Amino acid sequence: MKVKTEQLRGRFAGKLDDAAAGYIASINFDQRLYKHDIAGSIAHARMLGETGIIKKVEAKKIIAGLNAVLKDIESGNAKLTVELEDIHMNVESLLAAKIGDVAGKLHTARSRNDQIALDMRLFVRDAIDETVGALSAMQEALVNLAEANRTVVMPGYTHLQRAQPVLFAHYLLAYFEMFQRDVERFEDCLDRVDVLPLGSGALAGVAYPIDREMVAKELGFTNISRNSLDAVSDRDFIVEYEAAAALVMAHLSRLAEEIVLWSSAEFGFIEVSDAYATGSSIMPQKKNADTAELARGKAGRVFGHLAAVLATLKGLPLAYNRDMQEDKEGLFDTVDTVVNSLNMMASVLATLKVNADRMRAAAAGSYTLATDVADYLVKKGLPFRHAHNIAGNLVKYAAAKGKELKELTLKEYRSFSPLFSKDVLDITIEASLMARSVYGGTAPLQVNRALAEARKLLRGEGGG
Amino acid sequence: MKVKTEQLRGRFAGKLDDAAAGYIASINFDQRLYKHDIAGSIAHARMLGETGIIKKVEAKKIIAGLNAVLKDIESGNAKLTVELEDIHMNVESLLAAKIGDVAGKLHTARSRNDQIALDMRLFVRDAIDETVGALSAMQEALVNLAEANRTVVMPGYTHLQRAQPVLFAHYLLAYFEMFQRDVERFEDCLDRVDVLPLGSGALAGVAYPIDREMVAKELGFTNISRNSLDAVSDRDFIVEYEAAAALVMAHLSRLAEEIVLWSSAEFGFIEVSDAYATGSSIMPQKKNADTAELARGKAGRVFGHLAAVLATLKGLPLAYNRDMQEDKEGLFDTVDTVVNSLNMMASVLATLKVNADRMRAAAAGSYTLATDVADYLVKKGLPFRHAHNIAGNLVKYAAAKGKELKELTLKEYRSFSPLFSKDVLDITIEASLMARSVYGGTAPLQVNRALAEARKLLRGEGGG
Amino acid sequence: MKVKTEQLRGRFAGKLDDAAAGYIASINFDQRLYKHDIAGSIAHARMLGETGIIKKVEAKKIIAGLNAVLKDIESGNAKLTVELEDIHMNVESLLAAKIGDVAGKLHTARSRNDQIALDMRLFVRDAIDETVGALSAMQEALVNLAEANRTVVMPGYTHLQRAQPVLFAHYLLAYFEMFQRDVERFEDCLDRVDVLPLGSGALAGVAYPIDREMVAKELGFTNISRNSLDAVSDRDFIVEYEAAAALVMAHLSRLAEEIVLWSSAEFGFIEVSDAYATGSSIMPQKKNADTAELARGKAGRVFGHLAAVLATLKGLPLAYNRDMQEDKEGLFDTVDTVVNSLNMMASVLATLKVNADRMRAAAAGSYTLATDVADYLVKKGLPFRHAHNIAGNLVKYAAAKGKELKELTLKEYRSFSPLFSKDVLDITIEASLMARSVYGGTAPLQVNRALAEARKLLRGEGGG
Amino acid sequence: MKVKTEQLRGRFAGKLDDAAAGYIASINFDQRLYKHDIAGSIAHARMLGETGIIKKVEAKKIIAGLNAVLKDIESGNAKLTVELEDIHMNVESLLAAKIGDVAGKLHTARSRNDQIALDMRLFVRDAIDETVGALSAMQEALVNLAEANRTVVMPGYTHLQRAQPVLFAHYLLAYFEMFQRDVERFEDCLDRVDVLPLGSGALAGVAYPIDREMVAKELGFTNISRNSLDAVSDRDFIVEYEAAAALVMAHLSRLAEEIVLWSSAEFGFIEVSDAYATGSSIMPQKKNADTAELARGKAGRVFGHLAAVLATLKGLPLAYNRDMQEDKEGLFDTVDTVVNSLNMMASVLATLKVNADRMRAAAAGSYTLATDVADYLVKKGLPFRHAHNIAGNLVKYAAAKGKELKELTLKEYRSFSPLFSKDVLDITIEASLMARSVYGGTAPLQVNRALAEARKLLRGEGGG
Repeated sequence: MKVKTEQLRGRFAGKLDDAAAGYIASINFDQRLYKHDIAGSIAHARMLGETGIIKKVEAKKIIAGLNAVLKDIESGNAKLTVELEDIHMNVESLLAAKIGDVAGKLHTARSRNDQIALDMRLFVRDAIDETVGALSAMQEALVNLAEANRTVVMPGYTHLQRAQPVLFAHYLLAYFEMFQRDVERFEDCLDRVDVLPLGSGALAGVAYPIDREMVAKELGFTNISRNSLDAVSDRDFIVEYEAAAALVMAHLSRLAEEIVLWSSAEFGFIEVSDAYATGSSIMPQKKNADTAELARGKAGRVFGHLAAVLATLKGLPLAYNRDMQEDKEGLFDTVDTVVNSLNMMASVLATLKVNADRMRAAAAGSYTLATDVADYLVKKGLPFRHAHNIAGNLVKYAAAKGKELKELTLKEYRSFSPLFSKDVLDITIEASLMARSVYGGTAPLQVNRALAEARKLLRGEGGG
Repeated sequence: MKVKTEQLRGRFAGKLDDAAAGYIASINFDQRLYKHDIAGSIAHARMLGETGIIKKVEAKKIIAGLNAVLKDIESGNAKLTVELEDIHMNVESLLAAKIGDVAGKLHTARSRNDQIALDMRLFVRDAIDETVGALSAMQEALVNLAEANRTVVMPGYTHLQRAQPVLFAHYLLAYFEMFQRDVERFEDCLDRVDVLPLGSGALAGVAYPIDREMVAKELGFTNISRNSLDAVSDRDFIVEYEAAAALVMAHLSRLAEEIVLWSSAEFGFIEVSDAYATGSSIMPQKKNADTAELARGKAGRVFGHLAAVLATLKGLPLAYNRDMQEDKEGLFDTVDTVVNSLNMMASVLATLKVNADRMRAAAAGSYTLATDVADYLVKKGLPFRHAHNIAGNLVKYAAAKGKELKELTLKEYRSFSPLFSKDVLDITIEASLMARSVYGGTAPLQVNRALAEARKLLRGEGGG
Repeated sequence: MKVKTEQLRGRFAGKLDDAAAGYIASINFDQRLYKHDIAGSIAHARMLGETGIIKKVEAKKIIAGLNAVLKDIESGNAKLTVELEDIHMNVESLLAAKIGDVAGKLHTARSRNDQIALDMRLFVRDAIDETVGALSAMQEALVNLAEANRTVVMPGYTHLQRAQPVLFAHYLLAYFEMFQRDVERFEDCLDRVDVLPLGSGALAGVAYPIDREMVAKELGFTNISRNSLDAVSDRDFIVEYEAAAALVMAHLSRLAEEIVLWSSAEFGFIEVSDAYATGSSIMPQKKNADTAELARGKAGRVFGHLAAVLATLKGLPLAYNRDMQEDKEGLFDTVDTVVNSLNMMASVLATLKVNADRMRAAAAGSYTLATDVADYLVKKGLPFRHAHNIAGNLVKYAAAKGKELKELTLKEYRSFSPLFSKDVLDITIEASLMARSVYGGTAPLQVNRALAEARKLLRGEGGG
Repeated sequence: MKVKTEQLRGRFAGKLDDAAAGYIASINFDQRLYKHDIAGSIAHARMLGETGIIKKVEAKKIIAGLNAVLKDIESGNAKLTVELEDIHMNVESLLAAKIGDVAGKLHTARSRNDQIALDMRLFVRDAIDETVGALSAMQEALVNLAEANRTVVMPGYTHLQRAQPVLFAHYLLAYFEMFQRDVERFEDCLDRVDVLPLGSGALAGVAYPIDREMVAKELGFTNISRNSLDAVSDRDFIVEYEAAAALVMAHLSRLAEEIVLWSSAEFGFIEVSDAYATGSSIMPQKKNADTAELARGKAGRVFGHLAAVLATLKGLPLAYNRDMQEDKEGLFDTVDTVVNSLNMMASVLATLKVNADRMRAAAAGSYTLATDVADYLVKKGLPFRHAHNIAGNLVKYAAAKGKELKELTLKEYRSFSPLFSKDVLDITIEASLMARSVYGGTAPLQVNRALAEARKLLRGEGGG
């Protein structure tokens, strides 16, 4: 391999070893940044021309050349090579092949250190757009499913034990809330991404009368970095993206776990569409929710990338160190994983078959109305702790008899407390749901209101 | 051990095993929440009274009792016991001992699930306050040190190789920027902490006509949770605090690494005060910057807590699961570690002895002005890449002669390029610094402006 | 706070700051090492006496003093103080109080660096003993439960879908295998723990004619460290313990997940004893397997400690750095968590109520014998892939009819393949189990053999 | 995309969605297993023939076909496609194209679950071989460098403060020890990899009279798995490989940190060969040890993979779940990273230029002989603690005078203690080194012995 970056090795007598060139090269993954790299170079070149640091005609030539290089890359006519180490040197070399020596002026008032910082910020900005889009699509799938199943009742669980009846729509909206927080976190992250680092040079700022505001404006940045050493060393925004992504995957893993549970023969609440399920190589009867399992499993991968980047950054002195090149692969894989997993799970939801009868039957069993019985007694004047005890004894009695609570007679109720009267028999799933009509509760009224608010939020009409 | 939470075991025939009681008890660490737990209970009781869910006189009695319990705990007169499992049951039991049966009414319209969610949010709110305070103090220490050393010059590094001269103040302000982003991240996190979960009950909302707004107002929350299932399952705000804390520790670990490096005999840039250094049990001459080393090492601990909480939350179905009890110890330790490490490092900075001469000598060596020589040629019309090559050859030549660049004659310069004229000898550290007068650069003018802005920001006069 | 370690600060003019003393002190956690520290010191003192480095009578005095200090600590009569920073200085100070100036000779030919390395190795050696003991107890609980339920059948799952019938005992023995590998990993780790570091001094070896073999023998070490720089820098054995512990917790988390699933109303396979379950503060009917949930959740904590120690060690130059003090708390917590979680889960198993009927009913449903039908056809000469397809079509047909496979007539079978003859109706759960009589399979014969082997292994009669 | 795995979807009415097929496909990465997959299939086919489960002639045909497929893949003549999901289905499809229907018999008595378990074990076995080879090469590079610099002296450090003089060779051998432990850990891991899982079927064992011993023998496995459920669920060996790899990277990161430090202008101990260094795009004078920085940074990546796989496995019920597919990419990347990083760093060492004069000068400064002065006094009868204090005061005095210890007069020495006599002036670096002649110490005698032992170990002549 002939390493072509020898131009940066002015004072070196020896050549770079081939294996070393392969070890340090980043072009295999940073080629993903070609669009951002060229956009940044175009803005830089234009500014160099406008400020007279290079001639306007030179700037024009460079810009035209960069646009041509962009086309070549997109059409597959440009060859990116490991010999040129990274995307910056590849683009520069392609440019030189097109426009000759003047290409060398593009690197005026710029270093690879502030250039890569710029590329990564442009990339993360796009990644946030894409991620927020996928989150919104997921939220929409949740709302659609909830609206299509407004009256479906299921048992709410704590400790995976049936606890109290809830509306399925209420359940789905819990995930809507999680993904809404995710959206907000990415938006907050964007504020810190939205800073132009170019102009920081290698580390100390550049020694040319550049116009950073002009570049920022062309590239759509709101802010300009305030300290050159920090600007070339800062990878916080990558960590922050990955931390926000880790939470998305945590949420998805919870949803995926429920899809898997509910798809089991034991629960039988839902059936994943054939389009998102797989069979077995040996057991012909199997239908597996592999997509959900993978979404759950991929949470580990994203958590790992977060752990990796933190460990890599730990203890690095200022400013740029080559360790920081390790920021890219983990980030790229995180973006792909989060976006693909959101899309996949949204599709699973969009095509889900809901077995309302199985859900309702489960909600009706297991004494899920015992809290309502305790609440009944509280309303008759008992302190909650006392009422809780009586309801517990009732459950114990019913279980011993092999009965559900609704199968007990009033006489049996009254043997536990004289406060029970006929209306205790009115405690039903519907009554239980309706009783929880506090803001945020599972009462149909509240859930309908929440659905309307969620729709509004998705339409961009405020909320939050 | 007599487990006293049997009151929650109404339908159970058997007792809780002693070892199990110890395994599941959280009182050893959640006692840290006593203030928050009692504050939440007082607000809840007052609301129960105001809404008529319990009698006003009962509410008064409960509130008075809770205040008395608070005093007892703070004065060390209350005994918290493992037999009562957690802080909630301990407080309730202490309350019952004070005011009798009416204490049982406090748990009306509330579950331990929404109660602990509330306690944790109150705790994290306080933790953010404390953390942001410590960050600001650290920033102040950086600005103080920078102002006291406005003219000190040092080499900036990339790859730990001397790169270009920078002002020491500029270096310190790079850390100011990092901690400023940390402040913003915690403030963003606070928006998501600032949500009242109470009223969500165990998972479905409560079946009482409570007034959530009243409780929110008394406790100073801006928002009320929108979904009861989510409200009792959500630990995002803990993960988010820990992720922000991980970045603080990453920043501190970098600063600590520099303190250790600069304190070495080889660098000799600084001396850590005796007050923050230790000696050796065997080598009498040693002076070790242990405080900085620990701050660096403790980054690992905080990264670990973040990895832990994510792994713990992964794949949990809704709503509350006991796994979530594991959120506390890691968080508490994270808060303590971050705050103590910030304080310690701020003290190290406040008492640091700076060896300006050693710094300047280092900045003057190692051809740190080679970029300026290249820039000189660019300004005479050479493309940067060409200029860079010539400067590289000059360095190679000088190094072979055992000279620094400033020791070369004009004739020697001109043997590399006819563009060199007498003014090349004017390239000095000061000229190099002054040349980098772009916004964010290391020129004295820019650094003084940055210092003034930093001061303003610390005084709360905007910025960002 | 009066810091008493000033004796190590010979050349310092200034005092250690109080907050710094608190920040760097380790006595709050390293006091756990008191026994190991004293045992190491006794062996060291005896050797110093035997080799004539100190007088025999001095050694005797020191040893007697150390034994007295040990008693004082164990009886609670010795006060360990933060002012003395760590366990070493505390013990030395207590010793000096007992025997006067001669105590100062104990530190001859020793540094805190090799001393703490020794203490940690002694501690981990004990920890491995304890952990392996807990693993064996867990294995015994599994075997006991399996033996008590030899004939119980349950569905085996893949993707949480019922796959094929298996013996419950076979299922339990899968966990036996996991814990057996854990045992082996700890035993391998022990080989690397079993190395005496004392004699390495601060980093270069000591300048006295010590007898390392004598010390190793007294303390029961097989090997002596071969490189002093490595010996004081090596924390591999801690990482290795934690990595092995992480796998134990991964195994426990899987078992715990099954306990939680099987305890759900939907599965109904088991009931956790009241002794290891909890109730709800609001829902009187609830019985939660909190112990299992905590064991599952605590896996995250142990994973976090592993991530932490690796991040802390990363990039530290030789030899000792204060960062390494951070190795202790995570390790101690890991040991406690692993041992307690193993013990707790073993107790849960020992008291588990198994609902064999529910398990068998589940094993009989969901077409779990479809593979056997395919195998049937293979034995009649069809290639497996073809047979698999026919069985799949049969399942599709039966499901559409709402029948199980055993409810189909021979005629119906034959409409899918003429290869079916009467004996296809003999495919039963028992036949399916018996057919899997390969070594390691679920056939009763194989499982009984495996149980016998497991018993043998537990009795220490070889295996592996 | 036409998904060709429809053959596994016998009972499904709907097709797999294209995006889902892409999401679940593993062929993009598991194609790396083609050799292992085919080797396993050949052994399986041969056994099926020998046992009469299929006809011998069929087995022969299958084996010939598999060998042909292998050649096609290696020569690039076979196309692996996402439509066929994974390497198993791709190979099976290529086989069918070659030999027709009989290919369908290969899957008799086998499931993808035990097949992938086998492939991974074969892969990890190879990976361990390769990793141990790279470790040995690294050890050899260390020994070579040490032997070539037997007399070079440098300062040993603790807390990055100069502590005591050591031989450079001694320093290098510390790393030899670390990598030796790594070798042992991989060898221990191999014991647990060396288990044939085939025969476990999907989860319950297969229903055919297979001969597992025969397959084990052909594939070179010593052991056969004892429990089918465990065998298809076990990924311990992957975690264990990654944990061992994480320690290798921790060691490499420490070595890399030293390379970076020592290459700095401030240390100036070494110069990395041009072949393994890079220049700067903007600063012509720079020479950066990028290879070492990357090796250091890549530790984070490997730590992350370990965290990822643990999180992914946590809480999975038995047996196979699709989450487990996530085990591969992290493992593959770990193997590549560890092997490449070891090779790269070994090359850096092999070509390192050592500046013995700078090292010696550093060793002579900073009062590194103060411990020897204290030891001197101990030998004259002072308790160590007292001697330590006097040496500390001497250092303080000398530092105030701006002198090194060797520049003090005997009179000055005696003003601190009458025990000093003329021979105190004989304390030199050489004397200090020679004094540390304990086993494992830095005395030339000991280091030469250690070098000889290391050589012996590398030649495979025992050691440990």
